[in-house]
Amino acid sequence: MHPRLTLALAIMEAIAIMAYSISGFIEARTRRLDAVGTFLVALATAFGGGTIRDVLLERRPFYWVQHQNYVLVIFVMSLFAPMTFRAISRVISERVLLVADAIGLGLFSVSGTSLALDAQMPWFTSVMMGVLTGVFGGVIRDVLCNEVPLILRDSRPYATCAFVGCWIYVLLDYVNFDTVYSVLIATAFILVARLATFKLDMRLPH
Amino acid sequence: MHPRLTLALAIMEAIAIMAYSISGFIEARTRRLDAVGTFLVALATAFGGGTIRDVLLERRPFYWVQHQNYVLVIFVMSLFAPMTFRAISRVISERVLLVADAIGLGLFSVSGTSLALDAQMPWFTSVMMGVLTGVFGGVIRDVLCNEVPLILRDSRPYATCAFVGCWIYVLLDYVNFDTVYSVLIATAFILVARLATFKLDMRLPH
Amino acid sequence: MHPRLTLALAIMEAIAIMAYSISGFIEARTRRLDAVGTFLVALATAFGGGTIRDVLLERRPFYWVQHQNYVLVIFVMSLFAPMTFRAISRVISERVLLVADAIGLGLFSVSGTSLALDAQMPWFTSVMMGVLTGVFGGVIRDVLCNEVPLILRDSRPYATCAFVGCWIYVLLDYVNFDTVYSVLIATAFILVARLATFKLDMRLPH
Repeated sequence: MHPRLTLALAIMEAIAIMAYSISGFIEARTRRLDAVGTFLVALATAFGGGTIRDVLLERRPFYWVQHQNYVLVIFVMSLFAPMTFRAISRVISERVLLVADAIGLGLFSVSGTSLALDAQMPWFTSVMMGVLTGVFGGVIRDVLCNEVPLILRDSRPYATCAFVGCWIYVLLDYVNFDTVYSVLIATAFILVARLATFKLDMRLPH
Repeated sequence: MHPRLTLALAIMEAIAIMAYSISGFIEARTRRLDAVGTFLVALATAFGGGTIRDVLLERRPFYWVQHQNYVLVIFVMSLFAPMTFRAISRVISERVLLVADAIGLGLFSVSGTSLALDAQMPWFTSVMMGVLTGVFGGVIRDVLCNEVPLILRDSRPYATCAFVGCWIYVLLDYVNFDTVYSVLIATAFILVARLATFKLDMRLPH
Repeated sequence: MHPRLTLALAIMEAIAIMAYSISGFIEARTRRLDAVGTFLVALATAFGGGTIRDVLLERRPFYWVQHQNYVLVIFVMSLFAPMTFRAISRVISERVLLVADAIGLGLFSVSGTSLALDAQMPWFTSVMMGVLTGVFGGVIRDVLCNEVPLILRDSRPYATCAFVGCWIYVLLDYVNFDTVYSVLIATAFILVARLATFKLDMRLPH
């Protein structure tokens, strides 16, 4: 149907999973974890959100069972953790990582909402499932590394951007807008909103 | 059948959910979480126990999917977190909160045991499921806020009261006592036991 | 079929569950948890890995529902936690505990892999499920006790031994080697590998 859009989605997905696992690598590095710890934290960060979504929606097989290649890539990167880390800090700037992570937040949240709607969940629940899919990986990462999860205390609109973007997807779905376009629009919204609020240094009340 | 008792149970349920989410609000305040963090912690505290129970017993839809209005109330309270917190600390005294939380402990534990028995679980397992339903929300709350869960280190008979109360429910169920009355009796026992042991400052060995 | 081997497996299982719950007891002691906290931490350590495996593979009933006697033993040990702890530190030396824990790591990992293969999971996923079954109990224990999980930061090849042993099991399964012997061989490998790397003080890169 939309071969180019499907390709675009697949590329975004790869970017998103890599961005999430790299944030796991960096956190693991900060806590001086060993290779196995690095692998598990990167894996939990990349696939934690999708796994909790699949448990809650009773979907099988799990995303990471179907996409073993991603798991293998993260595994190999962990085996060479020090080299991986040096490569990351040389090749990928803070800004690139921020954009990649925002793509991940957008894509995971919107796809979570989409799957929840497919499973006949009511609107508000579908939006919550989407936000959970987007942010839960980071929460697990921080819990494993013994920190209060960043998204709970950061005061920056992270989950909030996902929340609004998921509502946009629900709206587009309600008016029977084409699914692939809807995913792209809502993801783009979350991406832009995240980057804009970050740039403008907007803060949530607390 | 028992319109008044059913109403009483519904009111107790509302009190219990509010009490649990308020304990989430207070903890979130202590850790200076932002609005989103406050919402997620309050939500996890209020519905964490029921969700883990439903995952373990394979029950669907989740409680919070069926009772979206509670989620919405917690959401609105989080949006106005500073105001909510001021209202809580003015209107609700420590003592009221203790009683409300004890009602929640009783009701959640007993209902968890009841659902486990319905699912043909053996007695001891049903009691453990009940205790888990009652205390797991608080455990998640404390893990998210990076603390050793209060119930694990408090030395006060909290889970212990729920444990005994759940056995009372199992007993009443075994002698085919009316379900609604059984729930009320076991819940009342846990409520009274919790308040009495708190008042008398009883301690567990450690 | 193999009455002696089945008996050997049952004995190893009992040793493994006791070893895991004792590591929970010791951790609970260090954090000065009360009797209930001790019970829950010991329980989570002993059965956490198997429970997450069963949730991921959709297996029911849970292991600890079928083997209530283990839960009861841990319960009674928790009731008399101070006595239990004195008995543990007198009767069981550090070295015995290390061996018992390594038996647990081996047996839990290999059985997790075996069940995942039975559920038609691909090889790499089955190995990951096995490792998860072996180490997750310890991860939950450390998260509950507010520490960065030991296996993530220890630098000793713990999960790594399980990982290699699970691949050995996958290989033996692939060549249709007898299941019970395969379990014993792979478990023995993990046991020996863990003890050898510990003795030689081998370290993972980090």
